[in-house]
Amino acid sequence: MTTETFTPVDAAFDDLLEIDAATADLLFREARTVNTFVDEAVPDEKIQAAYDLVRWGPTALNTLPLRLFIVRDAAARARLTEHLGDGNKAKTLAAPLTIVAAADPNFHEHLAVLAPHMEGARERFDAAGEEMRGGMARTSALIQVGYFIVGLRAAGLHVGPMGGFDAAGVDAEFFAENGWKSLIVLNVGTPAGEGASHPRQTRLRFDEVSLTV
Amino acid sequence: MTTETFTPVDAAFDDLLEIDAATADLLFREARTVNTFVDEAVPDEKIQAAYDLVRWGPTALNTLPLRLFIVRDAAARARLTEHLGDGNKAKTLAAPLTIVAAADPNFHEHLAVLAPHMEGARERFDAAGEEMRGGMARTSALIQVGYFIVGLRAAGLHVGPMGGFDAAGVDAEFFAENGWKSLIVLNVGTPAGEGASHPRQTRLRFDEVSLTV
Repeated sequence: MTTETFTPVDAAFDDLLEIDAATADLLFREARTVNTFVDEAVPDEKIQAAYDLVRWGPTALNTLPLRLFIVRDAAARARLTEHLGDGNKAKTLAAPLTIVAAADPNFHEHLAVLAPHMEGARERFDAAGEEMRGGMARTSALIQVGYFIVGLRAAGLHVGPMGGFDAAGVDAEFFAENGWKSLIVLNVGTPAGEGASHPRQTRLRFDEVSLTV
Repeated sequence: MTTETFTPVDAAFDDLLEIDAATADLLFREARTVNTFVDEAVPDEKIQAAYDLVRWGPTALNTLPLRLFIVRDAAARARLTEHLGDGNKAKTLAAPLTIVAAADPNFHEHLAVLAPHMEGARERFDAAGEEMRGGMARTSALIQVGYFIVGLRAAGLHVGPMGGFDAAGVDAEFFAENGWKSLIVLNVGTPAGEGASHPRQTRLRFDEVSLTV
């Protein structure tokens, strides 16, 4: 074995955490990727509570490029599902709420407000072009996706993230006007009991992912 | 104004969070990007406590591509600093600990253990090539960077993330053998009192970053 088998609580370094065990479990240790949810609406306020919490997380130059495309309408859901991998279609059609997390290459339009100390930043990013801005937006927005998944869990929600979809197809279908670039699709809700998640798999140990010099 | 001015606590939806206010403040609302740290060693155990917590966060196919290059040696620190933007050099030389977060395009070597149910996954990803794997590794590892910043804060540490560096230069300097791709550089430690961070800037509101259909 090169990894530990699953133990929901890694006790060894627990006393080094400044959050309590129940919070550590809620946000990371017992939270699971969920495939099957109870049929119960997820209120917008819960999504906003998650966003309002995590929007304080750091991004490059305070650019905040993460955008959230919240799919409630049944017809829009069906259009989205067309662009998902086969294994992701049925569970997305059945989920109470689906969010497409995206990056906004036009984040620079907000910089006069978000970074008022950086004089002329909007103009410099405008001149730098969409490809440069798109790469930068993608990097920070993906880090924000990490915060947002934590935030949804902090709001008591569970998440089923999916990378298996045709991003160019989703962007053409929904983002032709605003230019957003889809990053990941998240089903959101309350797990439908046991069997809502696959059995938990192992994780790499600290010594397997780190090098110290 | 298109955004709210800074209020450390967004009270409106607080009662929708299942974590307490002190934890919300520790992880997001009062945590700040730190530029100046007290001169006090950061023990490996705290970094491991942060990793052990957040390694349970979801990644595509449980690939866990995030890698941590922990720079303690003074000579290595100086070599790293050569590849940072001018504004990031002095503060990194003075930081008690610096971590280069990276993505591993050879994540597939672990899949027999991490995803034993996906028969032949290692071989399929091997055949798919390094460019495909590199893109996939970057996406999941950046999401893990989001988790990891939260984890460091959960371990009572503060973070100064920096995107301003020559990634190709860092990769050639340190990762020529293992093939890791640097994503972001994090200074880590305890803030040196007031003035350790810049004044807090505003954030975009939920209605500015979201669209509901």
